[in-house]
Amino acid sequence: MKKINIKELAKLVNLSISTVSKALRDSHEISEQTKTTVLEAAEKFGYSPNPYASSLRKKKSKTIAVILPEVADNFFSLAINGIQSVAESKNYHVLIYLSHEKFEIEKNIISHCCSGRVDGVLISISDETTDADHILKLTNEKIPFVFFDREFEFADTAKVITNDFECGEQSARHLIERGCKHPVFLSVSPSLPICSKRAEGFKDAITEAGIDISKEDPVIYCSGNPEQTFSQIKELLSKKDHADGIVASVERLAMQIYLASLESGVRIPEDLKVIAFSTLETAPILNPSLTTITQPAFEIGKTAAELLFKMIEKNNHTLMNNTTVVLSSTLIERNSTAKRN
Amino acid sequence: MKKINIKELAKLVNLSISTVSKALRDSHEISEQTKTTVLEAAEKFGYSPNPYASSLRKKKSKTIAVILPEVADNFFSLAINGIQSVAESKNYHVLIYLSHEKFEIEKNIISHCCSGRVDGVLISISDETTDADHILKLTNEKIPFVFFDREFEFADTAKVITNDFECGEQSARHLIERGCKHPVFLSVSPSLPICSKRAEGFKDAITEAGIDISKEDPVIYCSGNPEQTFSQIKELLSKKDHADGIVASVERLAMQIYLASLESGVRIPEDLKVIAFSTLETAPILNPSLTTITQPAFEIGKTAAELLFKMIEKNNHTLMNNTTVVLSSTLIERNSTAKRN
Repeated sequence: MKKINIKELAKLVNLSISTVSKALRDSHEISEQTKTTVLEAAEKFGYSPNPYASSLRKKKSKTIAVILPEVADNFFSLAINGIQSVAESKNYHVLIYLSHEKFEIEKNIISHCCSGRVDGVLISISDETTDADHILKLTNEKIPFVFFDREFEFADTAKVITNDFECGEQSARHLIERGCKHPVFLSVSPSLPICSKRAEGFKDAITEAGIDISKEDPVIYCSGNPEQTFSQIKELLSKKDHADGIVASVERLAMQIYLASLESGVRIPEDLKVIAFSTLETAPILNPSLTTITQPAFEIGKTAAELLFKMIEKNNHTLMNNTTVVLSSTLIERNSTAKRN
Repeated sequence: MKKINIKELAKLVNLSISTVSKALRDSHEISEQTKTTVLEAAEKFGYSPNPYASSLRKKKSKTIAVILPEVADNFFSLAINGIQSVAESKNYHVLIYLSHEKFEIEKNIISHCCSGRVDGVLISISDETTDADHILKLTNEKIPFVFFDREFEFADTAKVITNDFECGEQSARHLIERGCKHPVFLSVSPSLPICSKRAEGFKDAITEAGIDISKEDPVIYCSGNPEQTFSQIKELLSKKDHADGIVASVERLAMQIYLASLESGVRIPEDLKVIAFSTLETAPILNPSLTTITQPAFEIGKTAAELLFKMIEKNNHTLMNNTTVVLSSTLIERNSTAKRN
């Protein structure tokens, strides 16, 4: 039986489309009798009251999903603005889902996206995510998706990332150049490429500078919990001959480094130099102002969205496979790495 | 004609439910012949391939929407965490929509929510929003919703807010107590209750303290654009006998006050004392550390979500009408309002 649309249904029951629509929605503006008439006709003539039924078949929900770990990090709020700038120009809605760094939540979100609800997905994975099977469900459903910033390295899908390895090297060289003899790298995950690549670059550069890392790993893993991170850093700074330079692999660590230094009586930059991978707006007005490696967050979001819309518009979810766009980050020197007087 | 479900459809075509489901989704794992068989049977026996068709009728999408202006403000990222803590315990998905402070976008988002997509809505309105007709569409659709933080004052629906008027008074008294003779209040909107109530409280308290506001309005409206705000504040600080105390009604203004003071050679707190309505995590490590009126953002989000779920669970979108929960904010004194030596 051929399905009818709402216009045809309205004609059959001799009511306006708006009345039929309200009746189907069980609106209080419509009498019970009219509702019964409309619902019976809808059933009889095979009208489905679901507004997505047709959009689902055509796969046009005019909506994209952005899945990310958190919004407290400035990087993500800037990236969202980049994404939204493209989506708006395409007249698309943007749904933001937060995984809160939990793999199980990320899995649930992706299932939620796999039902005609969205035409495409932009994703930055959680720090717990170590396999991509759940993400590949999107491929099975032919839903195009693009990784941004936090990619899953072994997937052959489109990615927009920054030059993490080089920035890791650059952070180490900057600390060494500013006189650090004992720099360390604070990571939040051994599996996230953004962390592991930055850490590798860092290690390479300090080894190259002649610092022996065979006895002590300069990469330290911090907990996801702020209080625990604070204690870890305090402990680190309580050691005799403690680190004289720290690279924070993600923005939220910088805050804990500052607070722990303050409480430990460790002066930045005199006793400890600090660089953070961060787009923190307040970096210039911190005490002292914070040296950052600033990612082009808005551009990363924008570029990822542009790739996604290419796939959506060509109706080809594999169109951008093996496409990796690398946008460079910038070291911005401020007082937290100033030379000792 | 009675609709059949997927189980019945699978039986009719003698295939497994999983195969039928994949065929309906046009999965590459299924042969074209099988797909044709399934689709023809679906049409013949009136099966709608839409997974929401049934959830729509029962109004159970297991999803709530959060509509807010931006995520760059810490208040909103903390409030989201509060909301998510409740939604997770209820096994609900949270969709975040950003209005980017634009009324038109907010309107579109609300239409997007009015179609069985979500079971409830939490909303903090944009600073452009001056009427609530678009929001009342939710009422027509019997979708429960709760305002949090940025309410629309004249709606009789559930609201979770903070004690804005008292905090406005408190901010003024604190500046006066610290020696300010010429305090001003920076607002971002004359219509947003969070701004207007804070401004009213501020004005009342400075009038009470004997400061004459008849010649010059102590409430100054800033643009939404950071560069313009920066210029406005610089101009303000360039005047002879400029303000010696500023209250920032929203977090993002604090940043511009610090930057403009720095560039104008105005010292905080010696020449200018600053308080911000803010949950800014970096407030204690700014130069100088920032005195804040800190809203219970997480609690506001959590409480708003709890009210919403009461309505969803009782299936009664008017259950919480005329319920206003007021959670108090806290003044946290730091160096930006320290007394002159």
